[in-house]
Amino acid sequence: MWHMIVNDQKPAVSGNEHRYVLTLDCPDRVGIVAEISKFLADMGGWILEAAYHADPISGWFHTRQAVLASSVDMSFEELQERWRDMATHLGPDANAQVTDTARLKRGVILVSKQGHCLHDLMGRIHHGDYPMDVACIVSNHPDMQPVADYYGIPYHYVPFAPGEQGKREAFDKIATIVDAEEPDVIVLARFMQILPPDLCERWDGRCINIHHSFLPSFMGARPYAQAYKRGVKLVGATCHFVTSDLDNGPIIEQDVQRVSHADTEKDMVRKGRDIEQLVLARGLRWFLEDRVQVHNHRTVIFGS
Amino acid sequence: MWHMIVNDQKPAVSGNEHRYVLTLDCPDRVGIVAEISKFLADMGGWILEAAYHADPISGWFHTRQAVLASSVDMSFEELQERWRDMATHLGPDANAQVTDTARLKRGVILVSKQGHCLHDLMGRIHHGDYPMDVACIVSNHPDMQPVADYYGIPYHYVPFAPGEQGKREAFDKIATIVDAEEPDVIVLARFMQILPPDLCERWDGRCINIHHSFLPSFMGARPYAQAYKRGVKLVGATCHFVTSDLDNGPIIEQDVQRVSHADTEKDMVRKGRDIEQLVLARGLRWFLEDRVQVHNHRTVIFGS
Amino acid sequence: MWHMIVNDQKPAVSGNEHRYVLTLDCPDRVGIVAEISKFLADMGGWILEAAYHADPISGWFHTRQAVLASSVDMSFEELQERWRDMATHLGPDANAQVTDTARLKRGVILVSKQGHCLHDLMGRIHHGDYPMDVACIVSNHPDMQPVADYYGIPYHYVPFAPGEQGKREAFDKIATIVDAEEPDVIVLARFMQILPPDLCERWDGRCINIHHSFLPSFMGARPYAQAYKRGVKLVGATCHFVTSDLDNGPIIEQDVQRVSHADTEKDMVRKGRDIEQLVLARGLRWFLEDRVQVHNHRTVIFGS
Amino acid sequence: MWHMIVNDQKPAVSGNEHRYVLTLDCPDRVGIVAEISKFLADMGGWILEAAYHADPISGWFHTRQAVLASSVDMSFEELQERWRDMATHLGPDANAQVTDTARLKRGVILVSKQGHCLHDLMGRIHHGDYPMDVACIVSNHPDMQPVADYYGIPYHYVPFAPGEQGKREAFDKIATIVDAEEPDVIVLARFMQILPPDLCERWDGRCINIHHSFLPSFMGARPYAQAYKRGVKLVGATCHFVTSDLDNGPIIEQDVQRVSHADTEKDMVRKGRDIEQLVLARGLRWFLEDRVQVHNHRTVIFGS
Repeated sequence: MWHMIVNDQKPAVSGNEHRYVLTLDCPDRVGIVAEISKFLADMGGWILEAAYHADPISGWFHTRQAVLASSVDMSFEELQERWRDMATHLGPDANAQVTDTARLKRGVILVSKQGHCLHDLMGRIHHGDYPMDVACIVSNHPDMQPVADYYGIPYHYVPFAPGEQGKREAFDKIATIVDAEEPDVIVLARFMQILPPDLCERWDGRCINIHHSFLPSFMGARPYAQAYKRGVKLVGATCHFVTSDLDNGPIIEQDVQRVSHADTEKDMVRKGRDIEQLVLARGLRWFLEDRVQVHNHRTVIFGS
Repeated sequence: MWHMIVNDQKPAVSGNEHRYVLTLDCPDRVGIVAEISKFLADMGGWILEAAYHADPISGWFHTRQAVLASSVDMSFEELQERWRDMATHLGPDANAQVTDTARLKRGVILVSKQGHCLHDLMGRIHHGDYPMDVACIVSNHPDMQPVADYYGIPYHYVPFAPGEQGKREAFDKIATIVDAEEPDVIVLARFMQILPPDLCERWDGRCINIHHSFLPSFMGARPYAQAYKRGVKLVGATCHFVTSDLDNGPIIEQDVQRVSHADTEKDMVRKGRDIEQLVLARGLRWFLEDRVQVHNHRTVIFGS
Repeated sequence: MWHMIVNDQKPAVSGNEHRYVLTLDCPDRVGIVAEISKFLADMGGWILEAAYHADPISGWFHTRQAVLASSVDMSFEELQERWRDMATHLGPDANAQVTDTARLKRGVILVSKQGHCLHDLMGRIHHGDYPMDVACIVSNHPDMQPVADYYGIPYHYVPFAPGEQGKREAFDKIATIVDAEEPDVIVLARFMQILPPDLCERWDGRCINIHHSFLPSFMGARPYAQAYKRGVKLVGATCHFVTSDLDNGPIIEQDVQRVSHADTEKDMVRKGRDIEQLVLARGLRWFLEDRVQVHNHRTVIFGS
Repeated sequence: MWHMIVNDQKPAVSGNEHRYVLTLDCPDRVGIVAEISKFLADMGGWILEAAYHADPISGWFHTRQAVLASSVDMSFEELQERWRDMATHLGPDANAQVTDTARLKRGVILVSKQGHCLHDLMGRIHHGDYPMDVACIVSNHPDMQPVADYYGIPYHYVPFAPGEQGKREAFDKIATIVDAEEPDVIVLARFMQILPPDLCERWDGRCINIHHSFLPSFMGARPYAQAYKRGVKLVGATCHFVTSDLDNGPIIEQDVQRVSHADTEKDMVRKGRDIEQLVLARGLRWFLEDRVQVHNHRTVIFGS
């Protein structure tokens, strides 16, 4: 009854061999999973991770597949083309993508004076288990130059002159620097400046921010001061996509840290730092591993 | 140099003997702790718990002392009088209170149709480790009558007739029932009706609500629907004092529960229940044990 | 290129319609996912949840599929037979099962004197969102009889006479009572008696215990006393399958609760109760929803 | 009745002014709190934090007081002498200590090849909110030299020759280097070598380790491999004092991180790193702020 021809030799998986990650989202209907898995089986693809989400509210289908690259009997380019055909076949609104884990994602990090998230990210990248190359670091302050120097990363100091025009000119310079790198991701690692709408638009879907509150509580400026005043018992952090609607982009990850009446705003700032860098590190990792999909302003997060 | 006369015989403490709990808050200055501890030492008071908080922002001093009742060489009434004198001496705005743990606090519970918080609280009380007697349960629905019957607690079903007048009449009836019990605490265990301002005023400082979100996020109606729409990665619950400013009273306790993209609003409701009842149980316990003080709209929580 | 015939009419899913849950585990190889999804697509199965785990260490494949019952064009019995054929085809060691969520699982609960887990479970079941019918409650003490009466559940009090023989006779009686109910699950909700090896064997894979520590710490008797002595900063609870190797069965769920130096063993017991009932409730729910698979003494937990 | 002369002018507290931290532990009896607070009031001491713990099991009394240095009308040396007199007066086993927060604690950090805890600690120290000066870094590998260079900290590479004698000689060299610095604290930031008993003895009470499991689970080597094998659902980390009884010293802090069946040992190692550095950072901070007291092999942790 089961005549599908299968390759039943399990290839050696060292855990370090590179993978192709195939993602797709489209309107849901019966049989999509079968089509996708037949597609993979037909090319001999050894599935290492297979995740699906059929959303009952939005009627949308999401999937992420990680297959052992060496098990696939075609070139990366052909795989890309055929996967795109699959998407076309599944509907005009379908999105499909294939990436190769052998190629590190390319990132630009924007910082201000507060260096803890940058310090933490650079440590993770340097440690070798973070799938990102940092093309450059951009800042409106010179303070983080030594960190960039230590890791041998170009550092662009772009001062903000006062007034709206000064800000506009600075952002134009930043955009030029960033776009020249053709980054897969732009990370606002406590950048503290509000991106103008045209940049939000241009970098839509690849610009990630860490906000120092448990959104939607305490949007905007000085969230710890707001949290202190309200007397909350937990402070939080939120990693989200940047959109022109301030602090309202789709949420990738959140977490919280307990505080007490004895914690001043300054203590909350200090304790909050731990959770900010952890939440950014987790959210960014998932993005880099193609685990994040957005639909109707909400994210689907596959695995971890 | 140290001539204070002390009782250095340690009394036997079984853990079950009753205690006097002395609380006080007043403007801070040097020497308050010394005065309080001399006061206690002079009467032979064996201190089982001593907690202080000097708030550097508000300039306010808070304390809670638990002493072994049998170690005190005066009557409860005399202790009360002398402790009030202490407060008067410390300033016109000082607040002081003594309670005896041998006398259980008296509570009234208001519920609607959702019984999980009531079920959880009654289980804890029945188990014998929750310092509260439930005088009665009041509801705008008949659904929880069997729970009240099982535990032998009077149940008052007060239906809400449509319109503003119907609501007003129902609240007048509820107020009469509640006030007749002279409760130490009125617990809104998912009551789902907004208390009119005059009742908030009358029950100020002894009316506790559980809100099914991490305030100040998602105030008002259907917080889980709001949370689903916003795509948060954690849902929460908040135990707070009721004031006429809806969902804005001083926060006693909060906690959160992880959710994912796969959780519908219905799933969030289900998972949120666990955290609602836990947060209410913790916040209410602290209130019953006189661990909660309010100043400038923020709470000080002593111990746990 | 994509000729698979698919039903692209999405059926109405109310969230309450019943589902068929298909589970399978077998040695991993290329193409299993494709075979399974083709199997489901061919019968028109609308997949509501699809989860896979290919374990790189054990080389074992696990899956759980939830399909809308009304979308399947064959009887439950035929589906069972064909799914079993699939398993046979996938290897002699494969395990396969289909269940219908319209049929509640049947459970027996064993308790001792401590009623908090029973109280919590019965509240959840009574609330209507817990997929279990309680056939009966069995205890070595009469204390929980009133709880059983309230919910209208038969209660069997089986006293343990002193000595090994008394214990053996009691367990024989319990086994007779339990087995007469043909339960899908036997829940030890703080039962406090060590099951004899023959019962562990007979109920293998369907007997679930809640242990009041974060295993493998503090196995055996009085874990909170051990925890107090060691001075840990968190206490925990573990929901696990019962095996003849005491407290060493496969772990389904664990969680922890912060404690401090100020918490006595008695306080730990009180605080631990919250986490015990929560961990048991979560672990048992996953088991009832066929989300738990065991291989090499470790569990795979699908979804939540 | 209240004739105590008090200074009721509140001094300006910027939050940055230095403090004297007085700690004491001794057998409990009535009146100790009064004596201590009278002592502080008599010298005009403005109490910023006052914490007490009277342990009902051990019968031991613990306290920590932080007073504004500028409010005290005597020299640091005189304060030290008088506080020691107080301790003598309270019993032969009493321990007392005064420190000045203006003087940073002096630490030596021992590392191996895994740099994440070192990286995290150095970032915190560099950020300026960690009360420690690092005298030097010592390692049995050369790998962390660049980190030391970046922060301008002396780095001592002490290779371990094979065999017991090689190890003994290396430890003798390390001891000489460490002791020359007269450190307040020796931090084993994933040092991976077992300290010989004589060094445990010599550094008793000031040598702190981070163990990569939730002790007492998984003592000894490769805890993540043990955790994977046992199939636990949370991995943890423990910050504890080093004693000659391996991984059995008094616990200062612990925390956990959720893992799933999909996490291999390698994933657990990666996820565990976050919790290791957080737990070490918290435990070490509390030690540096004199918040940690040890009695009967358990710790008392004041504040946070």
